[in-house]
Amino acid sequence: MIAEIITIGDELLIGQVIDTNSAWIGENLNRIGIKVHQITSISDDREHILKTLKEAETRADIILITGGLGPTKDDITKTTLCEYFDTTLVFNQDAYKNIETIFLQRGYTVTELNRRQAEVPANCTPITNLNGTAPGMWFERNSKIFVSMPGVPFEMKKMMTDQILPKLSEKLSLGFIIHKTILTQGVGESFLAKTIEDWEDALPKNIKLAYLPQPGMVRLRLTAVGQDRSELEQIIEDQVQKLKEIIADFIFGFDDETMESVIGKLLKEHKNTVSTAESCTGGYIAHLITSVPGSSEYFMGSVVAYSNKIKQDELGVKSESLVSHGAVSETVVREMAEGIRKKFKTGFSIATSGIAGPDGGTDEKPVGTTWIAVATPEKTISQKFLFGEHRGRNIRKAALAGLNMLRTELL
Amino acid sequence: MIAEIITIGDELLIGQVIDTNSAWIGENLNRIGIKVHQITSISDDREHILKTLKEAETRADIILITGGLGPTKDDITKTTLCEYFDTTLVFNQDAYKNIETIFLQRGYTVTELNRRQAEVPANCTPITNLNGTAPGMWFERNSKIFVSMPGVPFEMKKMMTDQILPKLSEKLSLGFIIHKTILTQGVGESFLAKTIEDWEDALPKNIKLAYLPQPGMVRLRLTAVGQDRSELEQIIEDQVQKLKEIIADFIFGFDDETMESVIGKLLKEHKNTVSTAESCTGGYIAHLITSVPGSSEYFMGSVVAYSNKIKQDELGVKSESLVSHGAVSETVVREMAEGIRKKFKTGFSIATSGIAGPDGGTDEKPVGTTWIAVATPEKTISQKFLFGEHRGRNIRKAALAGLNMLRTELL
Repeated sequence: MIAEIITIGDELLIGQVIDTNSAWIGENLNRIGIKVHQITSISDDREHILKTLKEAETRADIILITGGLGPTKDDITKTTLCEYFDTTLVFNQDAYKNIETIFLQRGYTVTELNRRQAEVPANCTPITNLNGTAPGMWFERNSKIFVSMPGVPFEMKKMMTDQILPKLSEKLSLGFIIHKTILTQGVGESFLAKTIEDWEDALPKNIKLAYLPQPGMVRLRLTAVGQDRSELEQIIEDQVQKLKEIIADFIFGFDDETMESVIGKLLKEHKNTVSTAESCTGGYIAHLITSVPGSSEYFMGSVVAYSNKIKQDELGVKSESLVSHGAVSETVVREMAEGIRKKFKTGFSIATSGIAGPDGGTDEKPVGTTWIAVATPEKTISQKFLFGEHRGRNIRKAALAGLNMLRTELL
Repeated sequence: MIAEIITIGDELLIGQVIDTNSAWIGENLNRIGIKVHQITSISDDREHILKTLKEAETRADIILITGGLGPTKDDITKTTLCEYFDTTLVFNQDAYKNIETIFLQRGYTVTELNRRQAEVPANCTPITNLNGTAPGMWFERNSKIFVSMPGVPFEMKKMMTDQILPKLSEKLSLGFIIHKTILTQGVGESFLAKTIEDWEDALPKNIKLAYLPQPGMVRLRLTAVGQDRSELEQIIEDQVQKLKEIIADFIFGFDDETMESVIGKLLKEHKNTVSTAESCTGGYIAHLITSVPGSSEYFMGSVVAYSNKIKQDELGVKSESLVSHGAVSETVVREMAEGIRKKFKTGFSIATSGIAGPDGGTDEKPVGTTWIAVATPEKTISQKFLFGEHRGRNIRKAALAGLNMLRTELL
């Protein structure tokens, strides 16, 4: 089954907007077994749209179109589709109701311009836009499928996920697709791949694995395709269980979770609290923790101690520790963790001290050298890391490593 | 002058990689007066490439191609271009020398596979790739220009900026293009537009203005097109001077500067230091400041005081201030700023206290309400802001506003 994507909008051609829709659509079609043959971006121009539709129709079975559905004059996709399918616009009551609902929620009244967004070509099946006012449109002609969607990614994605992908799957008997993303921390992509090699090789044929590395974490995405949804869910669940037996220590969450949201959940469950004492991460761990709504329930505060004097005065780091071992050392980072935990009277604490770079490295302690400690009600643990040379990535990696050490202690 | 962009690579069609090249190329062509008519993304497939080239040639004067130039088998753009132009590959000494240099820098020896990257179609002008091993290729036939570039954005952009855009400009007598970006803080897009309306209307015809808003700042980009580079630079400079007279208070930097890098430069110039006391920003100001290399010279540290107890114990906020005015108040934020400045013995300090959301708002103090104070050796200033409803954006806006208040004091 071959698809083509057409994205319409002058803003794409002058580089004002990056077309992220096509990649998202391509990825999601691919997951249900539909291959994208070509992506074409064109301007809001009648002739150009007509010509591009005609060419795409000769090559593909499914043509997905985004953009040009707004209420203003420059948006001409809908009228051009009427011309292409030799039909006229008709008022659609359901689409109008959806517009009214959205306007009511926002406290606006529907204008004539918006009322016209409820008009759709007579020969199409309208698709409700739950995140906006422009309805999607599904056309069929000569066993080809055309779907026109809004260009706003947030609106398009909702429509694709809830309505168009399932409809394509059903219509073309493609079956179901189930995804599960496993989030790992503390292990590089190649080491991870080697560790789970046997498991990966033994995956059922209808399950595909993708590695999605980011600074400080690797996501593993499992995709299962088949005819029976609950069977697929079971297969994925079985594989996740098997994977857990191999790399339990590295897995910190699933799907849309983040390290900081997982930590937040655990601390709430334990009715416990955390503080941080940060040198090289410079407040970034506190920032991650406090980016979660409701974090004031378990996060008390932080001391960012960039200067040694503050490490001594505020965190109780001993002068002799700094002199004998240097600020980037196990002794100092443990004293920092214990100092902040005591000072802020929290159950747990995280401390970091490292050389983020680009300068400040030595032969003994090159840029990227980082000590991290976590203090708990029972003990203090500490670990040395050697990250890379890029300041921003080092800060991010150190923060995630520190949060992950806390997570392990909370389990 | 009409251009088309063709991006080649299976990874684009399966959504593994978002095509950011096209938008960047479109924007940059647009700036020199070349209009992009269509962007087409296709797979690494010989027939598909040939067909797409042929179609593009009928519509455009300039065809820019990216991707498919790697050393592996799946990269077939170069041999397909040979076929399209009815020519053969020849070894190019300059391209080989570039590959050797790059490999030497990285400590590798050149393999046979990489040696073949120095082969280019006989009828093209090779373009040196300063950031990689695959040379670019410039073709001319029947007064049409074809340029093939690597798909790696970092390599393509360098090639376009240094060589291809100037060559297109010269060849097509398009003249020069000069850009200048003015960074503003503390003013919304629409208010800014109104304030500088007269200036904007009076801009010379060869200067274009673009508004580029981000959470917490608005960038203004001036683009001048003409035949005389130094004249253009002068015209831009004159306009920037005029703009400075109107909105001096809002301008914090130019081009690639950031608020935190500007602050860093000012503190170094003043040989002075800063600390932060953060409630609602949760360490984000400290994170921004410490993301600048060398910030340990002027940043001492921070207390992130999420709990009221820490505000009292660590920052010397008075219990009666918290009781009478609440944590989000002018009195408390001033005490926080003065407390941290004294404690950490810095010349300057920034303090924040606000309701980042999504919960915690009241009728009197809705979500987004934020007090910020800056303490200096002479005085303490404070200001109230009402940001929006989105937690992440509120944190970012508060951090930039706080840094900007410090910047104003440092001037």
